[in-house]
Amino acid sequence: MLEDKNTTSIESVGEFGLIDLITNGLTTTHPSTLKGIGDDAAVIKTEEGKCMLVSTDLLLEGVHFDLSYMPLKHLGFKAITANVSDIYAMNGKPTHATVSLGISSKFSVDAIEEIYQGIQLASKHYGIDIIGGDTSTSKQGLLISVTVIGEAAIDDVVYRSGAKENDLICVSGDLGAAYMGYQLLEREKRVYLSTPEIQPDLEGHDYILERQLKPEARKDLIETLKGLSIKPTSMIDVSDGLSSELMHIAKQSGVGIVIYEDKLPIDTTTYNMAREMELDPTMCALNGGEDYELLFTISQADYDKVKNNADISIIGHCVNKSEGLSLITKSNNKHELKAQGWKAF
Amino acid sequence: MLEDKNTTSIESVGEFGLIDLITNGLTTTHPSTLKGIGDDAAVIKTEEGKCMLVSTDLLLEGVHFDLSYMPLKHLGFKAITANVSDIYAMNGKPTHATVSLGISSKFSVDAIEEIYQGIQLASKHYGIDIIGGDTSTSKQGLLISVTVIGEAAIDDVVYRSGAKENDLICVSGDLGAAYMGYQLLEREKRVYLSTPEIQPDLEGHDYILERQLKPEARKDLIETLKGLSIKPTSMIDVSDGLSSELMHIAKQSGVGIVIYEDKLPIDTTTYNMAREMELDPTMCALNGGEDYELLFTISQADYDKVKNNADISIIGHCVNKSEGLSLITKSNNKHELKAQGWKAF
Repeated sequence: MLEDKNTTSIESVGEFGLIDLITNGLTTTHPSTLKGIGDDAAVIKTEEGKCMLVSTDLLLEGVHFDLSYMPLKHLGFKAITANVSDIYAMNGKPTHATVSLGISSKFSVDAIEEIYQGIQLASKHYGIDIIGGDTSTSKQGLLISVTVIGEAAIDDVVYRSGAKENDLICVSGDLGAAYMGYQLLEREKRVYLSTPEIQPDLEGHDYILERQLKPEARKDLIETLKGLSIKPTSMIDVSDGLSSELMHIAKQSGVGIVIYEDKLPIDTTTYNMAREMELDPTMCALNGGEDYELLFTISQADYDKVKNNADISIIGHCVNKSEGLSLITKSNNKHELKAQGWKAF
Repeated sequence: MLEDKNTTSIESVGEFGLIDLITNGLTTTHPSTLKGIGDDAAVIKTEEGKCMLVSTDLLLEGVHFDLSYMPLKHLGFKAITANVSDIYAMNGKPTHATVSLGISSKFSVDAIEEIYQGIQLASKHYGIDIIGGDTSTSKQGLLISVTVIGEAAIDDVVYRSGAKENDLICVSGDLGAAYMGYQLLEREKRVYLSTPEIQPDLEGHDYILERQLKPEARKDLIETLKGLSIKPTSMIDVSDGLSSELMHIAKQSGVGIVIYEDKLPIDTTTYNMAREMELDPTMCALNGGEDYELLFTISQADYDKVKNNADISIIGHCVNKSEGLSLITKSNNKHELKAQGWKAF
């Protein structure tokens, strides 16, 4: 079981390689299974013309969150946000969720109630019912496993695989802020640990902190798109980082991608904090992750519908698969896009 | 966040107390939510007359399984078994599942593939599609979170709450064997740890070992009951232990319960091993857990249909709520039944 010289380490194949290995052996047999593993959510036909969407996420203390600065109530909210975001990314509506908790002995009942306050707040915000879960003692730290169920008309479902050459690539809101919030919190934590008498300096950074600590999934954008009579040709939520999500769309749609550095939506506060920390704002926007914005492609025919929407940025377009994925920099250089993934093995 | 004198410890309220506290605040709003938290699975209406069943379970290394004797393939199989068992306990048919894994660095790709071999085997055995999941690195050990989805006609669903006074209490198969398998494995592990040159003595104990390491959910029993034209008045699967499950049925149905020690189905090998270890076989059957048998109540009118079925034992009957829960011993004494729960906080 343990690693030895004759076995393959997970590091050597990477997270996506591991998922490929695992899922290669899995076949689906139910005719109702329209889509299994490989998109933001699975798609199961329920009644004529309708389907159920299912997505699941694991959040582990010390890997996905740090309780030294993440309030428990926010954590509960974020756990639901991360999951409903996957349902919106299918152009669906989340309806139900299960929440399982593994809890070590350091947590009190009051702590668990705080997490549930956040879960409850989120369930009201997104209009979902919490219908089940499991609680268990854990040997180390806290873990949250959420499975969310949603619904959609089968014809409305948007997959990662539908992008076509010449489609426009759009993203909602702005990118990199959650990552800069994370960097700021980590910096202040380091300062505090080395000099406890110095109070964390978080003043004036509300936006990036909120993006990290209390992100919201883009329920509103799904409604906006419906209002504009747009059905994206492909869609995915930005959880691992823009580059990584673009790669999923390119791979599953069989297209190439060109995006433009000067089109990337980066909030001023994100930009300034990146500069202050001597980080490249573009790299933060490309690889930061946890934005929970929606990345989608639309037909060029829909251009007029989105061009004046301040909440939607057109960041590039799809090209032939043979051209690969590239970023055109502000100085008009072409760079190959590489996904770093996020907190990989 | 951490416990201090002003907070309530989880130990002081217990697992069921914690679940009560958490779920008290949760309300459901979707008319499709026929049953939320509180039964083996949630029940969500899909199309006219049909529903979806949803159940989820968390399995943590060091809490629910010990990899020093649990083969990874068996672990994968058991993780699915524990979940589909909840769907059968609603008189439903499991159809789909998601599987999330948290994996520490001690595991190789080969180890993960072994777990998935077990999951795949189980998915074929129970006829379910694995439609999604999440994989993450974990700081300590292995964790598996499974959510299973099933289907049923709304009228066929059996809840914990339908038992009536005078109903007969039935259980499938036999009880306590998984627990004795666990005791045997733990004993041999202790011997091995203190005297590594001694090989584990597991010969001749196939049945109890298999019940612990490779339990099967009672898909066949659901078919048997359909064949006999029996719809139980209430049902639950035996995962925490018979006593604990009887309490759930009594509480949710608003009945009292009488069971008879001499009616409890205990396999000879279970009985002998308990004696060898100086344990009371009856206590093992009552509180052992992990049997994955089905405990159900039927109307007395159905007595003739089950009386000759060797796989179903009638162990008692429901009485007025005021009479509480009791066990009539072989020497005809009456003892109050107490649930110990299983691996509680």
